Amino acid sequence: MSTGGLPKSIDLSHHLSDVANARLPSPLKLLAKYAYTPGMIPLAGGMPNPSYFPFSAIHVDALVTNSFAPISLERRQSGTFSWLWNMFGSKEKTVPFAVKKYPDHPGDIDLATTLQYGTAEGSIQLREICQAFTERVYQPAYEDWKVLLHTGNTDGWSRIVTTFTNHGDWILAEEWTYPSALSTVQPWGIKAAPVTVDGEGLSAVDLRKILAGWDEAERGGKRPHVLYTIPVGQNPTGGTLSAQRKQEVYNICVEFDVIIVEDDPYYFLQMPHYVPKETRKTSASPFDTDEDNYLRKLVPSYLKFDWQGRVIRLDTFSKTIAPGVRLGWFTCNPTFAENLLRQGQTSTQAPCGLGQAMVAQLLITWKPDGYIRWLRGLGQQYTDRRDHFIDLLRAKFHTLTSVSEHNFWKGCTVYDAYLETGSPSEKTGAFEKVKCFSFVAPSAGMFIWLKFYFDSHPKFGKKSVETLEMHLWEELAKAEVLVAPGWMFSADQENTPDGKYEGHYRISFSTATFSDMKRGVDIIAEVMKSFLHDD
Amino acid sequence: MSTGGLPKSIDLSHHLSDVANARLPSPLKLLAKYAYTPGMIPLAGGMPNPSYFPFSAIHVDALVTNSFAPISLERRQSGTFSWLWNMFGSKEKTVPFAVKKYPDHPGDIDLATTLQYGTAEGSIQLREICQAFTERVYQPAYEDWKVLLHTGNTDGWSRIVTTFTNHGDWILAEEWTYPSALSTVQPWGIKAAPVTVDGEGLSAVDLRKILAGWDEAERGGKRPHVLYTIPVGQNPTGGTLSAQRKQEVYNICVEFDVIIVEDDPYYFLQMPHYVPKETRKTSASPFDTDEDNYLRKLVPSYLKFDWQGRVIRLDTFSKTIAPGVRLGWFTCNPTFAENLLRQGQTSTQAPCGLGQAMVAQLLITWKPDGYIRWLRGLGQQYTDRRDHFIDLLRAKFHTLTSVSEHNFWKGCTVYDAYLETGSPSEKTGAFEKVKCFSFVAPSAGMFIWLKFYFDSHPKFGKKSVETLEMHLWEELAKAEVLVAPGWMFSADQENTPDGKYEGHYRISFSTATFSDMKRGVDIIAEVMKSFLHDD
Repeated sequence: MSTGGLPKSIDLSHHLSDVANARLPSPLKLLAKYAYTPGMIPLAGGMPNPSYFPFSAIHVDALVTNSFAPISLERRQSGTFSWLWNMFGSKEKTVPFAVKKYPDHPGDIDLATTLQYGTAEGSIQLREICQAFTERVYQPAYEDWKVLLHTGNTDGWSRIVTTFTNHGDWILAEEWTYPSALSTVQPWGIKAAPVTVDGEGLSAVDLRKILAGWDEAERGGKRPHVLYTIPVGQNPTGGTLSAQRKQEVYNICVEFDVIIVEDDPYYFLQMPHYVPKETRKTSASPFDTDEDNYLRKLVPSYLKFDWQGRVIRLDTFSKTIAPGVRLGWFTCNPTFAENLLRQGQTSTQAPCGLGQAMVAQLLITWKPDGYIRWLRGLGQQYTDRRDHFIDLLRAKFHTLTSVSEHNFWKGCTVYDAYLETGSPSEKTGAFEKVKCFSFVAPSAGMFIWLKFYFDSHPKFGKKSVETLEMHLWEELAKAEVLVAPGWMFSADQENTPDGKYEGHYRISFSTATFSDMKRGVDIIAEVMKSFLHDD
Repeated sequence: MSTGGLPKSIDLSHHLSDVANARLPSPLKLLAKYAYTPGMIPLAGGMPNPSYFPFSAIHVDALVTNSFAPISLERRQSGTFSWLWNMFGSKEKTVPFAVKKYPDHPGDIDLATTLQYGTAEGSIQLREICQAFTERVYQPAYEDWKVLLHTGNTDGWSRIVTTFTNHGDWILAEEWTYPSALSTVQPWGIKAAPVTVDGEGLSAVDLRKILAGWDEAERGGKRPHVLYTIPVGQNPTGGTLSAQRKQEVYNICVEFDVIIVEDDPYYFLQMPHYVPKETRKTSASPFDTDEDNYLRKLVPSYLKFDWQGRVIRLDTFSKTIAPGVRLGWFTCNPTFAENLLRQGQTSTQAPCGLGQAMVAQLLITWKPDGYIRWLRGLGQQYTDRRDHFIDLLRAKFHTLTSVSEHNFWKGCTVYDAYLETGSPSEKTGAFEKVKCFSFVAPSAGMFIWLKFYFDSHPKFGKKSVETLEMHLWEELAKAEVLVAPGWMFSADQENTPDGKYEGHYRISFSTATFSDMKRGVDIIAEVMKSFLHDD
């Protein structure tokens, strides 16, 4: 099924910004008509001569695809796997590849092309890889979807904002969301209408409520027609939308003609449920299977439901290869792609050719299944990190486990962490315990979202929760533990609800060593003890 | 002398756009306060673990700095130089360098940093190199200027537009200019007021006339406060502003409070005057000297006159290293830099780390004088190419040389090219000659700007000059010669002056081989012959 360019149900005049509408095709398009004719004598473009490019050849030592085991750390350290992975883990195993200025075989990636001006679509080789990957992994619901490279999801989102919104518009976003996404829209006078988040992520119920009840006069702006959402490993809350919820959200967006911007950097950091350390030795890992079976276990992208072509998916290599390559891609309908392309032509132009060449040649060397194998290992590594951090929190604090009835985490296994404070009870000898924070194990991503209770703080009621949150944050930083304070992630920076007693911190388990994690959790407990007695 | 942040004479409220004014410092700034504290346990950021970056080491074979001789082709091919440069030219000589994931020595460029999220300023090492280079080569007139990396001058200009202009503003630009610069502003409803160009480039007389006589009501907008200019190897006309003219333009910009955006990609493609082939064997090359002497011969940048901090200079590695690295830098006052930085933080973020690392390590390997040596060789190469192309035009067409009195090329040596047409004169036996086009030798850059005369075309008067220009352009393309039609470069797309009989083509001599250039010029002559008889 093809959208035939643009789905009829999508009214472009409604969606494209004034800026995008005024954006003419570049004059270079005219030259392009003839530029690729074989035999053409090139006297038009301002391209430097490739013989003056000072890079003659680039040789890379790349890690092999099975560098990381797809089974949990506990299983690797036990039984028959132990010697195997210890041996393997002791030294990096690499595979070499090279990119030369002039290719050995036609079609090979070469530096003469890579280092030249490129088209804003991105290199042919890398686009073809991303196209095949999108087809295989996300299976878009229509045929003529397009893939277009960008220089990372921040660039991608920025281009979407200037292409699809006008100054003063409202957009929709999760009530807790990625701060940079908000920083991108604020200068354009764009306001985010916060949609409630629950244990999975975006609430379909609240989304419908906001759209159906939109009051232009009260809001001072039209009903939003762009939803910015992080559906997997929601940043910062860590939830992941089920297929069912995505279908619900999609249907609502069809009903109210909303474009879904699916910012999905953590898609391949989906994780199994957290199980306590003791049982991980014997529990099976979802990563320990073949490539196709692994892909089947991942939640579907919005693209899979997108029969209308109203989803703009943002993929990035930042979390799966490296952020420094500044590379990712849009997947969307051809009309949207054409407009996003034009926006790129007059700003970033093409992504860096060296980054494109290195990533493309790496993926060619690895082969498609090899990259999926790499992702399986990576998923396990981040799962190990999450599990280890939660083990540490559970070991350091008294934690009670329950299934939440609270709206925010309804149905999730919640860990409530208590600290012993004051002096022991005369009767039982036990210390008084104060409930400090709660969390659920994230289902994807790099972060644990801690909900802090400030109502037992001596200054609660005298100082705002934001002040206490920042005060504790600064105490932690002075004690050499840097976490992210919760207010940064609030889509609604202006309103503080009445009777609020909860603060938040986002804790990343992606980079710290295991011993630093242990030291960090110990420091957090110490700092909190003195914080709770702070007068 | 320091500007003390921002020169008092520059009224920021006048210059910063509404968008820039609304741009708050990113929340990440808060975290940055502690992020670089030694010993800090990093649980805040969403940075992937560097051990999962699949690039272990990158080894590069780079050309040596003296790969290209700083003396003309004719001298290389004659006498004592001949055997030396033939030997040298026969095989690429390279120098190896490597960038490893973890550095051998502290401060070395490493992949663990390069491949991680970077700051929007760019890598420390590359910024320091650009800073030292700017200091040495351009010698800015005040002290606290800043250097900030961008992903190429198109990105740089795009960021300037959203930072310093509002929707509907007017800017100033040369009457003939880089089409992409116009494509960048048009979607924002920004109009370019064209300033006359002469043999040097931007006319100071016309600039003053436009600014002094600005009529808000007539123009439907305020007097422009941004000048976009290409002062060296002006694209497409090929002129280069003298120091004196730059001083005049700068003074006018002080008087009318205009920011000068100095887009200067061709600065190191400055060339000596064209001398006929016969005399090149014995004429000295300005590139054949030591590094400091070479730099002294280059025209000064606007930065050298910029005692107020109103210049934003755009440098790029596109023409000196390679366009595919998508790297360049702003030089401007610290307040402008801060605002351009914020714009980058929510769009491109940092330039590609691989590109930054490869360029920085290349320049470190080459050393500062080595890079200047490379630029000397490069300048000679493009001079050889220009000279060869002009030789070919002069050999193929009957050319008359004169010093122009025409306003556009006043004082320049102009070549008028004639074609023999029709049948020979009965009296003299000589063919009738038709004046086809004129040109001056460009003083920098990659292009020759041909002024075409359409008044001898049979359809002149019946069809517009633009139509004839495109008709000839298409005939050339069909005959496999691709040039750039002149209308693309017009800042004033709407108005065609009365009585116009001139069209233009921009011809690039940067990429074609010498034999393709010869074939191209032969084809141009053939196509024109039949074009002039086209009924």
